[in-house]
Amino acid sequence: MAFKALLFDVFGTVVDWRSSIIAEGEAFGRDHGSGDGLNIDWAIFADAWRAKYQPAMRQVREGQRGWVKLDDLHHENLLELLEEFSISGLSGDEIDHWNKVWHRLNPWPDTVAGLTRLKAGFVLATLSNGNVALLVNMAKHAGLPWDAVLGAEVAGHYKPQPEAYLKTAAFLGLAPGECLMVAAHNGDLVAASACGLGTAFVRRSTEYGPGQTTDQDAENEYDLVADSFSHLADQLGC
Amino acid sequence: MAFKALLFDVFGTVVDWRSSIIAEGEAFGRDHGSGDGLNIDWAIFADAWRAKYQPAMRQVREGQRGWVKLDDLHHENLLELLEEFSISGLSGDEIDHWNKVWHRLNPWPDTVAGLTRLKAGFVLATLSNGNVALLVNMAKHAGLPWDAVLGAEVAGHYKPQPEAYLKTAAFLGLAPGECLMVAAHNGDLVAASACGLGTAFVRRSTEYGPGQTTDQDAENEYDLVADSFSHLADQLGC
Repeated sequence: MAFKALLFDVFGTVVDWRSSIIAEGEAFGRDHGSGDGLNIDWAIFADAWRAKYQPAMRQVREGQRGWVKLDDLHHENLLELLEEFSISGLSGDEIDHWNKVWHRLNPWPDTVAGLTRLKAGFVLATLSNGNVALLVNMAKHAGLPWDAVLGAEVAGHYKPQPEAYLKTAAFLGLAPGECLMVAAHNGDLVAASACGLGTAFVRRSTEYGPGQTTDQDAENEYDLVADSFSHLADQLGC
Repeated sequence: MAFKALLFDVFGTVVDWRSSIIAEGEAFGRDHGSGDGLNIDWAIFADAWRAKYQPAMRQVREGQRGWVKLDDLHHENLLELLEEFSISGLSGDEIDHWNKVWHRLNPWPDTVAGLTRLKAGFVLATLSNGNVALLVNMAKHAGLPWDAVLGAEVAGHYKPQPEAYLKTAAFLGLAPGECLMVAAHNGDLVAASACGLGTAFVRRSTEYGPGQTTDQDAENEYDLVADSFSHLADQLGC
């Protein structure tokens, strides 16, 4: 293995989107609604928002619409959600602020220390479906030491389309085999591997909450399998 | 002024390309040629390489050829230079290594400390004609703490074309007026200003050597004028 860059899936792999959204939802609920606040199960809300993610990107992938960045897909999905959860009376600015909760997601406990170690040995870049602004603001919020913020938006293609992987490697001036895709999702790694990238599975067994059943383990042969970014740094000699 | 991001020109503004190339040239000259090494004035070599920069990009800007990243333009120009300076016998790998001297440029003395201060208050992004790989490798080499590596390659347009400025702001999710262009070149700032960006002139009076006559001073009204990145950080309250 002679990897020069580590390319990271972000939602779920680097940050814990679900608990971050639940926490902001609970604070939001206390401040809104009448009397005791909004009576919403924010875990269900977070899962419902995330459930709209793949179908929204699918329309772009399949060419039913041109390029739409993830902030805008999230916004469209949020408007649907607000109706489904009977949340009304929010101003445009309040909705925008809610939508940007995806810019304020918190890292897993091992993320920052692990990335900091890995940065000494490798170029660290995002290979996320998140748009650049989302990822840059998240990095400021969470202290993520990226060398480059790349992925779907600059490639003009959402994962798992091959262009997302291949163009990210090309922007870094690297062959696919010089890049190691790091993700908590088997599907992402299978797509990366098909493009010639190396693969590292990092276990995030509560990304979808305590009852998570998918992506609990590496379902294929990968170059590396790790329980955390610190464990990944150990294996990569950083 | 309510700037959220500082967008940096890189060659000459952030790094001292000329003295970096001269230093590598002198080391290269000692190791090559016969006897006393190559008898080349590396300052003239560096200036000649840089003189081919604008004409090469002009062909791309004017549509005489499709997108060609700066590494490749540098490489084409280097092949011409090697002939003009009668340097022969280099392998492809040696030429590639020479070409990547642009990935190994050294910062001005105030650069890293200034950027580190500025990073606490703003998103820091490149808005350079350098390609992503060049800028990422340079950042690793020189310790430049960018939040995002953007500019010509991801915009698909070389400065001073307006798309380079406008698309970089858009990738950051910002209006042009929320971005402050930082450059040592009046022409760059005039083009940025025409796109609605704020402007900061940073004096780099020896970028072209001790006899530099251009860009010695701010030739227009800019939002800020500074003698160094530390001076810029002072003015921006960082």
